[in-house]
Amino acid sequence: MALITKKAKDSFIVMNELVLPNDTNTLNNLMGGRLLHWMDIAAAISAQKHCNRIVVTASVDNVSFQHAIKLGDVVTIEAKVSRAFNTSIEVRLNVWAENIPSGSRIKSNEAYYTFVAVDQSGRTIPVPEMQPETEEEQKLYDGALRRRQLRLILGGKMKPHDATELKALFFPEKDQ
Amino acid sequence: MALITKKAKDSFIVMNELVLPNDTNTLNNLMGGRLLHWMDIAAAISAQKHCNRIVVTASVDNVSFQHAIKLGDVVTIEAKVSRAFNTSIEVRLNVWAENIPSGSRIKSNEAYYTFVAVDQSGRTIPVPEMQPETEEEQKLYDGALRRRQLRLILGGKMKPHDATELKALFFPEKDQ
Amino acid sequence: MALITKKAKDSFIVMNELVLPNDTNTLNNLMGGRLLHWMDIAAAISAQKHCNRIVVTASVDNVSFQHAIKLGDVVTIEAKVSRAFNTSIEVRLNVWAENIPSGSRIKSNEAYYTFVAVDQSGRTIPVPEMQPETEEEQKLYDGALRRRQLRLILGGKMKPHDATELKALFFPEKDQ
Amino acid sequence: MALITKKAKDSFIVMNELVLPNDTNTLNNLMGGRLLHWMDIAAAISAQKHCNRIVVTASVDNVSFQHAIKLGDVVTIEAKVSRAFNTSIEVRLNVWAENIPSGSRIKSNEAYYTFVAVDQSGRTIPVPEMQPETEEEQKLYDGALRRRQLRLILGGKMKPHDATELKALFFPEKDQ
Amino acid sequence: MALITKKAKDSFIVMNELVLPNDTNTLNNLMGGRLLHWMDIAAAISAQKHCNRIVVTASVDNVSFQHAIKLGDVVTIEAKVSRAFNTSIEVRLNVWAENIPSGSRIKSNEAYYTFVAVDQSGRTIPVPEMQPETEEEQKLYDGALRRRQLRLILGGKMKPHDATELKALFFPEKDQ
Amino acid sequence: MALITKKAKDSFIVMNELVLPNDTNTLNNLMGGRLLHWMDIAAAISAQKHCNRIVVTASVDNVSFQHAIKLGDVVTIEAKVSRAFNTSIEVRLNVWAENIPSGSRIKSNEAYYTFVAVDQSGRTIPVPEMQPETEEEQKLYDGALRRRQLRLILGGKMKPHDATELKALFFPEKDQ
Repeated sequence: MALITKKAKDSFIVMNELVLPNDTNTLNNLMGGRLLHWMDIAAAISAQKHCNRIVVTASVDNVSFQHAIKLGDVVTIEAKVSRAFNTSIEVRLNVWAENIPSGSRIKSNEAYYTFVAVDQSGRTIPVPEMQPETEEEQKLYDGALRRRQLRLILGGKMKPHDATELKALFFPEKDQ
Repeated sequence: MALITKKAKDSFIVMNELVLPNDTNTLNNLMGGRLLHWMDIAAAISAQKHCNRIVVTASVDNVSFQHAIKLGDVVTIEAKVSRAFNTSIEVRLNVWAENIPSGSRIKSNEAYYTFVAVDQSGRTIPVPEMQPETEEEQKLYDGALRRRQLRLILGGKMKPHDATELKALFFPEKDQ
Repeated sequence: MALITKKAKDSFIVMNELVLPNDTNTLNNLMGGRLLHWMDIAAAISAQKHCNRIVVTASVDNVSFQHAIKLGDVVTIEAKVSRAFNTSIEVRLNVWAENIPSGSRIKSNEAYYTFVAVDQSGRTIPVPEMQPETEEEQKLYDGALRRRQLRLILGGKMKPHDATELKALFFPEKDQ
Repeated sequence: MALITKKAKDSFIVMNELVLPNDTNTLNNLMGGRLLHWMDIAAAISAQKHCNRIVVTASVDNVSFQHAIKLGDVVTIEAKVSRAFNTSIEVRLNVWAENIPSGSRIKSNEAYYTFVAVDQSGRTIPVPEMQPETEEEQKLYDGALRRRQLRLILGGKMKPHDATELKALFFPEKDQ
Repeated sequence: MALITKKAKDSFIVMNELVLPNDTNTLNNLMGGRLLHWMDIAAAISAQKHCNRIVVTASVDNVSFQHAIKLGDVVTIEAKVSRAFNTSIEVRLNVWAENIPSGSRIKSNEAYYTFVAVDQSGRTIPVPEMQPETEEEQKLYDGALRRRQLRLILGGKMKPHDATELKALFFPEKDQ
Repeated sequence: MALITKKAKDSFIVMNELVLPNDTNTLNNLMGGRLLHWMDIAAAISAQKHCNRIVVTASVDNVSFQHAIKLGDVVTIEAKVSRAFNTSIEVRLNVWAENIPSGSRIKSNEAYYTFVAVDQSGRTIPVPEMQPETEEEQKLYDGALRRRQLRLILGGKMKPHDATELKALFFPEKDQ
């Protein structure tokens, strides 16, 4: 049975979390690990909406934390699928931190989590394709191939030499 | 005042966590985000031991999850500093999952978290250098430069062209 | 200084939560109290966005739970301000429960939470007015007066005789 | 099989909770949603004691929060069944907040939660009647009919015109 | 200023907790450590009520766990002060586990926790005496001396030879 | 089938926990009950490693808390089996509290937890013997008999007269 192609908007979800005391370190800043945990839940819901299956986290790409998020801030996480491969789903996350009383709102993070869809006994199963609609979705879709090659290299499953897409990103002058 | 050079073993710590129901999804598997959260706490303790300062998470490198960890398993996280730069500390993590009744124990993950040391008002401060002692520590120490370049490129703070160490990874035949 | 009038959409927020084991009873159903807790956090964020102040919960109106929400379901809470009075803010909540693998999605609850805005020492302060824009927002805005009278009567702060708006609800034939 | 009639005292329970950091907002006050969660657990235990069955929350009546409860305070929740209908149980709650070092103790809330009893597959089942013994219990028992009519009207399941008990409460001059 | 003598009933408190999934091991039984945590909170509230001060746990006596407590059970903890010494307070706990649907209720544990009262800077301060009223309270009061000697011996602060009260309990034939 | 004898080192584990806001009282000190909970988890993992079975807590011996542990401190718990009896396992715990920025590290507690091994239906089963190797392990092994007698007496399961080992502790001059 052919799987129905999905749109990026089909998997778009928003999560808002209030930073509470137990989420913070002794400087009253949100701990990075707590944010990674929330992002995983948001991304998993998004991946579920894409494939209507139980999903398990396969990887998280490099995430950097450039701004301190404070106790009492509201963290807004937006997630949507950027591309689907045979049995895996890449989800793009945008994270904002907002201090509502002061009116400040900063882009905190961008990240990619990947998931695989599984059946009730935990076996991997195919997922629908994702058809980008907007220019921004197309750009995320195209970049997914490069990110996938980087994951495979970092996981020791691909030789750098074979990562043609990635080379084109890093060293365009040599590959063109 | 010159900072005292530290050894890798000075920052070595072990954390054991029991996988409880709230850490799991509906398949009774540990959720990836929960593990990332534990890893962040273990790595932060290790980085603190290196610099004797409060630390905040600066980034987490690509982490992949290849094995399901089950409810009731014991997760063992070993962390130690692999290299320190001017104000940042890279921590290497090894994660195992053990099902004690069945006697199975698998290497679950390897990962790198980086931290910056801050004073009480949150300003970045210098950290001690890390002097590798064993061959394995030296190898992690050497690789840290490449990983740092990759972080800077992925964060848009370095042009691929300038990432000489990383090039050596991708095009060994051309750069050596 | 006059407060700037806000729109309903200025305070609109969405929260998604995954039902985890600790949120459920022995039938694996979400406990009502846990949902009330999430709704309070979502409504507080919405009220904060309206007044850009710290807010404290003043009351929750009658909430009924008509459908069992299961372990693993995604709870979606939408909140926006329905009306502001002098120092209090009424927030309207819509709650859905979705079982993504099965594709079922039900409207679980509607509710109203009210908040007061306070300064750093906890003293009540005035809040901006809310100007409805759509027909649905106008309807919620108009109903707020009746709900407020009901709260005052149930709290022993208004005599039923004076609740003219509420009388119109109970005895439309007599009041129109 | 006829169900044995129960007394109010058969379902009386007391719960004490210490307000911890994660229960509070940035003013160090207990969040309303957390209190609603505790009240739901206390009321559910009371309803269980009445019917010796698993119970699920059916509704919570209007609850108002008039006093700030502080970090470190002890919250005391007393619950007992006020009336049982065919398959539903109304529980009356009294809540106090006590700051033990300062010796202050205030009545924080009164509330009504209703529950339905269910079997292992979640189907509604009949519950025992509740026979009031004291004057206060009789008063709560009598009021339960009015509160039930209000719930039915607010839930859109009864026309205001038919709520004869409720009319008598709100507009005694017209109905007597 | 002389401290007012307190009665045992002044410090009597009851705590009811519902056993939730995260409180249990893989056999769905309440973990001993979780119960010890609840008992500490209940005992601390009781000790606070005795001295109207902040209290910190000084010790817990031997506690044995003889019955499995199941997921969904209600744990009832009763605590009251059994004796006060100069700056320390001994609290006696009785713990029951109840499976309400099946009607079974067992005495799960008896235990003694001791606390010291402290001021805002954490310095130990004197506490009121406790005056037993009933025969049972007198018996607990008398036994407190023996239990205190056992604590001192186990903590290396008293030589067994000097524990006259304890010898009388353990080896009455030799000491009388 | 004979069970294989285990060594103390086979069951040695280390757990590190960061003291977070919700673990503390209003003086920002770790609550005793929270520490007892962590110790139970560490000890259970150690006991599991000894017998490769599910274990349940049978008792905790007297634990005293002599030092305040602060918010932000790292608690290190070391656990290893000190002796095994027919179906029960005694685990010795050493607990340290470390304030890393200030460099202070104190021995916080020593404790003994005992466990019984059970099969999937909760029935008690035999456990391997523990063979001490070092002098310190031998000393802990020898002391286990006295501690066991004390547990049996305190639990009302042994008459003091029969506790020959314990008598040797109390009346060394008479028994040697």
